[in-house]
Amino acid sequence: MSLHPAVAAVRLAVRRSLADVGPGRTVVVACSGGADSLALLAATVFEARRGGWHVVGATVDHGLQPGSAEHADRVVAQMAGLGVAETLGARVQVDAGGLGPEAAARRARYAVLEEVGARLDAAAVLLGHTRDDQAETVLLGLARGSGGRSLAGMRRSFDRYRRPLLDLGRDDTVTACQVEGIDVWEDPHNSDPAYTRVRVRRRVLPVLEDELGPGVAATLARTADQLRDDMALLDDLADAARAGLDDPPAVDALAVLPTAVRRRVLRLLALEHGAPGAELFHEHVLAVDALVTDWHGQKWVDLPGHLRCRRESGLLVLEAAPPIG
Amino acid sequence: MSLHPAVAAVRLAVRRSLADVGPGRTVVVACSGGADSLALLAATVFEARRGGWHVVGATVDHGLQPGSAEHADRVVAQMAGLGVAETLGARVQVDAGGLGPEAAARRARYAVLEEVGARLDAAAVLLGHTRDDQAETVLLGLARGSGGRSLAGMRRSFDRYRRPLLDLGRDDTVTACQVEGIDVWEDPHNSDPAYTRVRVRRRVLPVLEDELGPGVAATLARTADQLRDDMALLDDLADAARAGLDDPPAVDALAVLPTAVRRRVLRLLALEHGAPGAELFHEHVLAVDALVTDWHGQKWVDLPGHLRCRRESGLLVLEAAPPIG
Repeated sequence: MSLHPAVAAVRLAVRRSLADVGPGRTVVVACSGGADSLALLAATVFEARRGGWHVVGATVDHGLQPGSAEHADRVVAQMAGLGVAETLGARVQVDAGGLGPEAAARRARYAVLEEVGARLDAAAVLLGHTRDDQAETVLLGLARGSGGRSLAGMRRSFDRYRRPLLDLGRDDTVTACQVEGIDVWEDPHNSDPAYTRVRVRRRVLPVLEDELGPGVAATLARTADQLRDDMALLDDLADAARAGLDDPPAVDALAVLPTAVRRRVLRLLALEHGAPGAELFHEHVLAVDALVTDWHGQKWVDLPGHLRCRRESGLLVLEAAPPIG
Repeated sequence: MSLHPAVAAVRLAVRRSLADVGPGRTVVVACSGGADSLALLAATVFEARRGGWHVVGATVDHGLQPGSAEHADRVVAQMAGLGVAETLGARVQVDAGGLGPEAAARRARYAVLEEVGARLDAAAVLLGHTRDDQAETVLLGLARGSGGRSLAGMRRSFDRYRRPLLDLGRDDTVTACQVEGIDVWEDPHNSDPAYTRVRVRRRVLPVLEDELGPGVAATLARTADQLRDDMALLDDLADAARAGLDDPPAVDALAVLPTAVRRRVLRLLALEHGAPGAELFHEHVLAVDALVTDWHGQKWVDLPGHLRCRRESGLLVLEAAPPIG
């Protein structure tokens, strides 16, 4: 019996991603019951025989849909059936707290994975995101318009987390599950056009494929890879430049920085003084930058978080805005 | 009679773009006869009364469509009627020479504008690209997938060239022409779906607006602005790093460079040795990079332009590939 290419591709991706993980170490696989994470789980179990890892399958019940507890039970049973050494089903309370429902669920889910990873001293926590997820993330970032950072997509790894499937298509994981006889769950959220991500998947990407040529998802993912490296370096340069500034910084010291670094430093300064990241837009940064590089008597710039930025005696001063009235 | 906002916006954009141009200087406006460039021309003539500039309207007949010579004559007459000090109609031979017809026409057009700008010692040569052109350029770059550079879009200015309308919508220029009673020409190429750019305009951008929300064109243009600054700095860093390397460079000296700089340097090295830029893909650069950072006995990497890159005695050697056979 020959190995199907889709199964081989998922296994190879897992093997490469975990090449540095020694025998006896614990590998957690986050599993929703969808094709991506089930294919990932099955491949990890297979590769663990060679790698000597202790594989833990973890699923999180967000309690957001009717029957979610039963679904979580089914995923736990399915993970056990696929041969993981240990299963873990966690129930969480999703507290939106100002976030959208997707973001709140994600935060709750990562909190569980964080805790599990630490408690088990896991060498890695694997996430099943594919190239298609990456392409969707890039397009969602494009719509936000916050520069290269928002186009840089998801990282291949961070902290304990790794995304072995980021170079594979979603189709590959669906095929791998079919070939291996694994029943996959279709998350109803994945077809609800109320979610921007679903509309990107169903409407935007197909049009891009039609009009710009096939392989757009791979192209977007490749662009994200390059931009992550670029943004990481620019952020490092900005951190270093920030560390070299006085408090408050001299306008002259800011003015000599390259534009790309200076604007990042100005953003950092605003965040340090309490501006909420989600409300601090590029327009704010540009207005502060004009105090440095194009000053013609502007009095001050208002920033989110009741901040005010002004230029005084050659210094760039950030301070609380005076109370109104 | 109050000034229409669209006319005011185009004039303001021209005034700002040419704020540094003194009286008596020559300003060339490249004009196709379309709404963008005619609105630009009319606004430049108006602002020239205050600025004291000598405005030259230039149109180029590419000879690619039947009746193009008559069209060029009409544009010359129209520019004169709009009050430019001098008109110039140039006929060019478009020689594709391996380029697509759009790229070949662009090259021929810029050669004329280059020559005219130099001969007249123009302070500026104005191009009528709008925010919509910029958004299309970003999306075309996205489809190419060559990283931040391809997403950075068109520059606001380079050499003598300036693009005053890059923050305005195409609609603004159409409205400005209507309000001022200027007849505009619809280039039949602009509705020919054989051109990828036309499909981006007609099919892709409307879907993005529908699914991701209005203002996508402005968002794409803003992203491009940020990426241009970012890419400019990274390219400068790569140039500086390249200048500090021996020839051939030591692998160790390359390995300590940050990833984003190192890969740019490797690209520069390949270009210096004659690899054609249009054929040198990111995959090539990654393969060369693996010789530096992930060497496990690879013999060599083949590069376009009959080049070969290999690692020898701690050096990264680029050389002509031996003839086949």
